[in-house]
Parts: sequence; C-alpha cells; structure tokens
Amino acid sequence: MQSDDPTVTSTIADYLLTRLVEAGVRHVFGVPGDYNLGLLEAIEADPDLEWVGSANELNAAYAADGYARMHGLAAVVTTYGVGELSAINGIAGSYAESVPVLMIAGTPTTRAQDGGMPVHHSLLDGDSGHFARAFAAVTCASALLSADNATAEIDRVLERMLADMRPGYVRLPADLVGLPAPAGRSRRADRASPLRTLERALADDSTSPIAGTERRFTERARTMLAGASSVVVLADHLADRHRVHRQLDVLIRSGNLLSATIAGAKSTIDETTPGFLGLYIGAFSAPSVRHAVETADVVIGAGLRLSDLSSGGFTAKLDPDRLIDLQPGRAVAGGESFDGVSMAAALDLLADIVADRPALPAPLPMPDAVEDDADGRGRDAPLTQAAFWRRIGGFLRPADIIVADQGTAFYGLLGLRLPSGVDVISQPMWSSIGYALPAIMGAQIGMAPGRRGVLFIGDGSFQMTAQELGTIIRRGMAPVVFLLNNDGYTVERAMNGWTAAYNEIARWDWSRVPGALGAGADAIVARAATPAELDAALAACEREPGTLAFIEVVLDRHDMPRLLFELATAVATENARAPEATASRHEPDRLGAQRRPRACAGPGPTRRRAR
Amino acid sequence: MQSDDPTVTSTIADYLLTRLVEAGVRHVFGVPGDYNLGLLEAIEADPDLEWVGSANELNAAYAADGYARMHGLAAVVTTYGVGELSAINGIAGSYAESVPVLMIAGTPTTRAQDGGMPVHHSLLDGDSGHFARAFAAVTCASALLSADNATAEIDRVLERMLADMRPGYVRLPADLVGLPAPAGRSRRADRASPLRTLERALADDSTSPIAGTERRFTERARTMLAGASSVVVLADHLADRHRVHRQLDVLIRSGNLLSATIAGAKSTIDETTPGFLGLYIGAFSAPSVRHAVETADVVIGAGLRLSDLSSGGFTAKLDPDRLIDLQPGRAVAGGESFDGVSMAAALDLLADIVADRPALPAPLPMPDAVEDDADGRGRDAPLTQAAFWRRIGGFLRPADIIVADQGTAFYGLLGLRLPSGVDVISQPMWSSIGYALPAIMGAQIGMAPGRRGVLFIGDGSFQMTAQELGTIIRRGMAPVVFLLNNDGYTVERAMNGWTAAYNEIARWDWSRVPGALGAGADAIVARAATPAELDAALAACEREPGTLAFIEVVLDRHDMPRLLFELATAVATENARAPEATASRHEPDRLGAQRRPRACAGPGPTRRRAR
Repeated sequence: MQSDDPTVTSTIADYLLTRLVEAGVRHVFGVPGDYNLGLLEAIEADPDLEWVGSANELNAAYAADGYARMHGLAAVVTTYGVGELSAINGIAGSYAESVPVLMIAGTPTTRAQDGGMPVHHSLLDGDSGHFARAFAAVTCASALLSADNATAEIDRVLERMLADMRPGYVRLPADLVGLPAPAGRSRRADRASPLRTLERALADDSTSPIAGTERRFTERARTMLAGASSVVVLADHLADRHRVHRQLDVLIRSGNLLSATIAGAKSTIDETTPGFLGLYIGAFSAPSVRHAVETADVVIGAGLRLSDLSSGGFTAKLDPDRLIDLQPGRAVAGGESFDGVSMAAALDLLADIVADRPALPAPLPMPDAVEDDADGRGRDAPLTQAAFWRRIGGFLRPADIIVADQGTAFYGLLGLRLPSGVDVISQPMWSSIGYALPAIMGAQIGMAPGRRGVLFIGDGSFQMTAQELGTIIRRGMAPVVFLLNNDGYTVERAMNGWTAAYNEIARWDWSRVPGALGAGADAIVARAATPAELDAALAACEREPGTLAFIEVVLDRHDMPRLLFELATAVATENARAPEATASRHEPDRLGAQRRPRACAGPGPTRRRAR
Repeated sequence: MQSDDPTVTSTIADYLLTRLVEAGVRHVFGVPGDYNLGLLEAIEADPDLEWVGSANELNAAYAADGYARMHGLAAVVTTYGVGELSAINGIAGSYAESVPVLMIAGTPTTRAQDGGMPVHHSLLDGDSGHFARAFAAVTCASALLSADNATAEIDRVLERMLADMRPGYVRLPADLVGLPAPAGRSRRADRASPLRTLERALADDSTSPIAGTERRFTERARTMLAGASSVVVLADHLADRHRVHRQLDVLIRSGNLLSATIAGAKSTIDETTPGFLGLYIGAFSAPSVRHAVETADVVIGAGLRLSDLSSGGFTAKLDPDRLIDLQPGRAVAGGESFDGVSMAAALDLLADIVADRPALPAPLPMPDAVEDDADGRGRDAPLTQAAFWRRIGGFLRPADIIVADQGTAFYGLLGLRLPSGVDVISQPMWSSIGYALPAIMGAQIGMAPGRRGVLFIGDGSFQMTAQELGTIIRRGMAPVVFLLNNDGYTVERAMNGWTAAYNEIARWDWSRVPGALGAGADAIVARAATPAELDAALAACEREPGTLAFIEVVLDRHDMPRLLFELATAVATENARAPEATASRHEPDRLGAQRRPRACAGPGPTRRRAR
C-alpha cells in the first residue's frame, strides 16, 4: 500500500512496488521461495498489484517478457540461487530482444551474506556474489539493495532499464523487506513515472541543446529526400520496443511511402497500409521487396539492429549514403550522426518533410489467393504447412495478440499479411524455443478481454515449457493454441540430422494434455491432420469465442516454410565451415545427400495472401 | 570412434568424447541446438556413447547430476546462450552439492565470435563472453576450446573437476568439432582415465611425501582414540561424492563404532549396521542421537560440509578438540591439519587403529513399530504423512535407487531407516525443487535392471520439471513415482503464507498426466487418498515389478513431518529478523498466529521404524 508521501510510511518493499505501479505495472510474475516470501506478502497486500505465480522461474521470466512487450515494463520475483538462475535465460532473452524486465531476487539476510554463512541456495563457499556476477552479464543495471541505498538504487536501475530498454536486476535481502525506505532522490516527491519522465525527455524537450541537433538532422534529411523518387520505411524491433508505432504510421501515410519490416518487427507497421511491401530479409526476401528496398533512393530505418537471421545471413544491403538510420537516442543520416535525436522525434520531423509527396497510384499488386488444395491432394489428404498457413490467414482477426515460437511457427507466420491492430510477439534474435507459451500468458494478462490470444508453437518447443499451460488454465485464460506436431525438432532437422534420432522427442498424447493440466470439458480440444479437420477446428473456435482451444496440427516432420529451410541451410553451412579451409576434415552433414525439404512451397514471403 | 592412438586420427570432438569414455561416461545428456549438432553427430557415431535427449536443458542438467552421482562423472551438451543459460541452475546445484558434471556448450564459429558478429542466441552486442562469465561463477574450471588448445584444455578441465568434485565448463565452437585434435599432453598416450589417475594419486601413493604426513596423522589420531570410550563416525555428503562408502563401512565394522549421518549423506552409511544411530541435525536431532554425537569422546567426521539446514540452523555442536575431520585431500585431528591425507587413506588408517575395540553389546534399542492407524482414524480415513511414510518404510527394498525432492518428500524420507544397499539422491544444500524427477531419470540410466527407482516428489516440485516424465516414458524406464499432492508449496507454507494464495499452484488432473505424456495402458496409475488405497497401490507395484507406476498420494496441505516444520520455522525466523532490532517494522508472518502444523507427529527422526 502506498501513502501519498512514500518518504514517511514506505517500507523498502512498498517503495519498490510503488515505483513499479507508477511505471504502469499491475501484475508481478514469479515463483515463491523462502527468501522472497516477505516481498510476496507486500505484493498480496498491495491493492494495485496482482501476483501471477508460474510453474517455474524460466516460465515466469518468459511471461514477464511477454507482459513487458504489451505494457512497457514487467517485474519477476524469484528466490536466491535456484530461482534466479532458473530464470536467467529468460532475462538474457529480454536483453537480446530489448525488453525491460526487472528481475527481483529475494536473497538471504544481510547478516548471512556479510558473514558468508553457508545457507541453502548458496554455493556454500561464503561468497554471496556468484549469482550477481552471473546476472551482471545479462542486465544493463543491477543493485544489491541495502537499508541505506534502496530508494536511490531502485530508481537508478529502473531509469537505466527504461532508457536502454533492457532488463535490470535487484537483490532484496529478506531482512530488509520491512525496513523503512531510506530518503530517496528529490524527484521521487512528484511521483512521476520513470516511464513518463523518459518519454517527456525524449519527445518534448524542444528547449534543450537537442533542438539544434534536430534542426541540423532535419536539414540533412530534407536534402536526402528532396531528389528521392523512391523512399522505403524499414522497421525493426527497436521501433516496437521504443513504441513509435503511431509515429511510423503517420510518417508512412503522410508521405505515401513504401514500407517493409524486418522479421523481429512483424506487426510494427500496419500491414494493410497502402505501400506495405512485406518482409525484408536480405537475399531471402521476395524479389519485389528486395528490389524495392535495395534500390530505393532513401531508406528510412526505424530501430534497425540486424542479426544473422534477420539480415538473411548478413545479405542485407543498405547503403549508408542512402540510409536515414533512426536509433534510440540517435539519428544517422547519410553517415552523419546526430546524437540525442530520439526515434520518435526524428519520425515526426521526417513526417513533416515528406508530407507533400504524391499519393501512391494504387495498391501494390498481390498474387492471387492460392487455392486451398493447391498441393493437389484435397481436403482429406494429410495437412501441409502450406495449407495450414493459408487457412490461418483467414482465421486471424484484427486486434489478435499473436505469439509465435521460433521454428516453423514463426517462419510460417512471417508469410502472412496480417490484419490491422494485431500484435505479434516473437523472439527471432534470442530464439529460445519454448518462449512462446509462457509469453502469451504474460502478454494476455491485463489486456482487454476482446483481444484474443493466438499461439503457434511446435511440439518440441511446447515440451520445453509445457507446464505453463496449467497456469493459463488456472487463470481462466482462453487463447487459441496451435500445437504444430511435426514429431520433433524440425528447425534443427533443417540444419543437421535430417533423420537423426537426436532430433526426435517424446511422443505425447496431445489430446490428453489440456485435461491433464486442468482444462475442463468445455475446452475445445481437437486434432487436425487434414485440411477438413482443421476447418472443423477453426469453425469451433469461431463458434465459441472466449473458450480455450488446443488444436494439435499434425504435420510432416520434413515439411517447413521455404524461408526457414533456406535460412537454416545458410546457418548450417556457416557453422560447418572450417576456420581454415585446408584444415577441415569435417563432414557438415553426413545425411546431407538425403536432405531436402519435403514440401517447402509454403506461403513464404513470395506468396503473400490477399486479404 | 576412437582409434588406439588419438594423436593420429582424432577430431576435437572425438578427443573430448574419448576422455569422457575413459572416465566412465557412457551416456551424454542434453538438448540439440544448431551450434551443437556437429558434436551430436559425433556422439551418435560413437559406439561407446548413447545420447539422452531431455525435454529442456535444465532437466538435462538435473539428469546429468543424477547420473554423475551414480557413475562418478557426467556430461551435458547444450547450445549457446539459450541452452547453456537454461541449464545453469542445474550446474550451480552440482557445484553446491559437489557433483562433477561437465557442461559442454556448442557455440558460434570462431569467426563469428572473434568478429563480434550479431548471431542468434547472442546478446547482439559483439561480446561473445557473456555466458562464459556467467558460468565462471558456478564452475571450478572452464575453457574456450580452440584448434590449438583443445586437448590440453579438455584434460585440464576434467582433471580439475575430478579433483574438486565440481562441475566444469567447456565451449566448443561449431567450426572446430571436426578439426584434428592438436597434439596433447604426453600422459594422453597411455589413455589412462583421469578418474583412475586421481584415485591412484589419492590412494596408492605411499612413496610420496604424503606418507610422512600420514604417519603423523596416524599418531595424532591414535592418541585421541586411545582413551576414548565412545567414538561416533559422522558422515556428510562429501563422503558420498568421494566414494568412500566401502572404507566407511570397514572402519565402522572393524571398530564396532557408533555412526550417524548428516541429511545430505542419507544412505552413505548402511543403516542396518550395528551402532547406526540415525540422523544428526544439531538441536533438531532425536535426543538420543544428539546426546551420542555431542558427548562422544571422539567424533570421526567424513566429508563434513555443514549448511544452515543440515546443521539444524547452525546448532550442531562438534568440539574441534574431539573431532577427527576428514576432508577431501586433508585431515584435521584435534585442530591440527594434515594436508594431502585423502579421505579414503585416512579412513583406512583409522580402521587399523580401532580394529581392537570391543564389539557393541547389542543392537541399539529401537522404538516399537508404530501402528498403521496410530493417528486414530483408520484405513479409510484421509491419508496422513505419518501413515504414508510408515507404509513406505515397509515398501522400500535393498538396492533401490531413491530420489527425494526437497520438501515433505525428503524430510519424510529422513525419518526412515533404510534397507541395505540403497542409494538416496537428494539436494538438501542447493534445494532446487523439481530436481528429483529429471535426476531419477539420469540416476537410473546405466544401472542394473534390478535396481528399482523410487521417486518422492511434491506436486509443486513436479510441475517445475514435469515434462521429464515424458523422457522416462519414452526410454521405457519404470520408476515408482510417489506424487505427494498437498495442493501447493507446503514447504513454503511452513515458512510464510500458511494460507496465502501465492503458495497455491495449478490443479492438475494427476491421473491423466502419465497418459498425456505418453504412458501406455500398462502403467500403474493410482490415486491414494486413504491408507487402504495406498496399500492397494503398493500391492500393485509389488505384483508388477518393472512397470512404471505413478501414484498420486493425497495429503493435507498443512500436514508435514515435524522436522521440516521445525526447520522451516527456524529459517523464517532468521529471514524476518531485522538487521538492527530497533529498526524493524516488519511482521514476519501476518498469519503466524494461525500457523501450526496440522499433523506433525510423523515418523521424524525420533520415530525410526524397526526393520
């Protein structure tokens, strides 16, 4: 509970929770443990916060990541050692994908730590710093809270996180939870949200020295755009994380610009916007997209941070001389850097510049919708990835919250043109399979009830974090889950071990999984091995919105979207390439001769579906 | 595949695998990922090794820990970043519990790392050292393998691990897997096992300078033991890890000595040995055990490394003047340290000294076996922890492999006197719940088929790592699983939040879990809510040995062994104690007044069951 003046009545726990609430947090994720139970008591007593317990800590961290992507910030609470280390892969993922998640580890008492006592959940060697050192490697700011520094350190970590859009880490000793919060920084008195403070600093500070830099950036950009007959806006995931969706939309529409997205920014640009081209992924792009992007007179990049996969194995070609590169806190135009110009401000400035450009003559040409039985086998033949994704293209609705796990799930989704207002959550840079199931739990919490959750996840991925379906059921949530059952790690098969046993997994009886994890008889549980069965399952979901659905989609183990196959082949080739060609005795894939995609004519980026 | 001379034909991967095989490893645990697929190919091609794929990396690390406890060493293979970080909690547990598990992370190519390329599973910041820094915090030795150093570094890490009984970490870049192994150290030529080499060094080196130290240790110990009328051997977990079971047995029997174990050493001393007292846990011991240990003229400690829980909240009283403290590589007698005297050698020397002590007059008195319906409610009343553990006492058989998760499972088991030849695996220092399910999978692999696995695990713990039941089923393994369903985190309830919502978990339909995860109709799946139902389930297991059994044991959420309740109360009190008493405003447990164990008259250490 927060009083009006936290300097008077707050405990350290309440101060921390107050700061989270101010920043927009309403749910705290995690798992109880004896060193955090005092904090959990404070959360349970706080009328503005709800505790969301997960089945394990990695799942809690994934859920918090999903929540932060929708709400701007999340917090996850674990216990010392066993809990925090279980979560660290999730926190590292938040780092790689630029998602601000605050990791709060309840620790042994200050006495125990200072005295090097061999307490449980420690390494028994008298050194209480092991896990903080581990977390220093994967967070942008961290703090060991003390009775003296707690308020200042909480503020410092949160503000650093929101400036960098990265996870932070605080350790809260069990004996400090109930102590009075020490006097904090003066700005604390106005109870301004760090998030709002940051936004003001980025967007509204026209009297600062930045204003001069913005003018110089504007002049440079105006010169570049003056003679440009083709301009493409290219969004990457940092545009999503820094929440410039509105500014991007204004820029594209006011200038009638062409636009495209990098894989990690799927849904950041409204894909029904005139001039939206689709996915740019270097040499793996559809030829029309590649041509448009790489020959544009100017590319306006928003939040570009390319990785091996998102750049098509480093084949992306963006000429710095023709690039206006908008980064967090910095804009670069034609190679000249303008430090301090925020992405949001730069987009607004560019929108003014391009406002007089002529309208696009007409919507871009689209390929015809592909027939449902285009694979020539009909509605009762085995279901293919192509037939599955074609149907999903018609199933998705505006405002859906879509989470797609890495593998055929995400790369299949990339081939679809999405309705307006959807949010896509994925992890194409960190690429930790299993992320998507807890992430959709976190992403849906606190959202309007009408926003349907839709999950695409492979069977190997689902098994990684399967228990979180129990949390979804326990909370009465009702996503539509598409379990893509292709009998193992198809994404790995694409790289190595096309038929190897190590890419196989346990065979679960998927139809019994929801019931085992607590789903009632009202849940929609279906198995779709043919187009006809999939149509029936989709129809059931349409008939009963708001009902949990779990649809096992049976697919061949070697069926995959062409884009995934091509990217995987590139990765495998790179991994197997010897440091010195003459020294290599390695066979990159002993089964390489047999390796071919069973059916890779799916609706990849070259086959966008008309809406 | 290994040739006779690895310097001629080995690749780096084969050299690594050869070293593992030499050290006794026959199974490698892990999860495939694109940076480790080359190594998995080499494992699959190796006739001496079998790949054991887990559903996720934390489970694989736990399984490897269980395997290492039975076989002396284990290896777990993951991919970079996402995989290794998912496993780090398991590796840290191996560190805390002194278990040598080699973590092998397949990494991006040397090119990608040296060039700081933004590859997937990295943090995209050009620094490839993040995860190595995280692992440095929880391993005793680590190495980034290169084309030049691979053999020397593999040897160094393995030898350090086996000397310290701690986990190690090697990073194997994907492009090095198939390169020729560089010329290694000369000792490599004799293909001696590092494990065997270590054992020789510890046990057989009578010509070394250690021999003089051993003579001085012997004299000092002889003096201490000469006038001692009572001598107690007290074993802790390092005696188990350094594999001195035989030497302990010889010492106790040849000297007719009393003996007791610390919680982490359960089963290290044969509990049917005359003079075996039971569990020593400081002030929480049974009075007779506490008296015997704390008033003994000499205590011979084997591998003592006490923690908060195992010392009864630091209440253990072991007078250094009367203690012969045998540690790995060092013995301390009456406060004088004898460096280099191994635990095994010291035990042998002590056995010679005490060989003339008189026989114990008779077996120690035992309490009468408690009646099955001692709680006064009968065979059809709700099952209690007390009634459950009494029946388990009669169910366990010699040579069982028992794995007990932390919580009521382990603390209930501690109250039983076990048959000969059982192995108990638990994690009382690290105490990461969920460990036990993957650990029994790892522990049973490679063991004689007649050695039955018996798992005790709580419902909250099981949910942490539930997917590994699928691996057990997939491999055709047949442990008897006792799922202690007490509707949440009872171990946390004992500390804080006696009725709090945050200690509740999703309610699964446990009877459907084995089938959902792939179990056939032949599996024994039972629910035992009364003593009669439990008897029927146990009888089914006796009738059908070699059959997977999954028995849901329904227990009250506030029912727990007295020992657990008392220890948990001590921990909660310590955690809530303010750093300075006058500064505290914290209520340690808002529900404290209501908190009492529903039934804590279980068969704790004061109620050992006669055999």
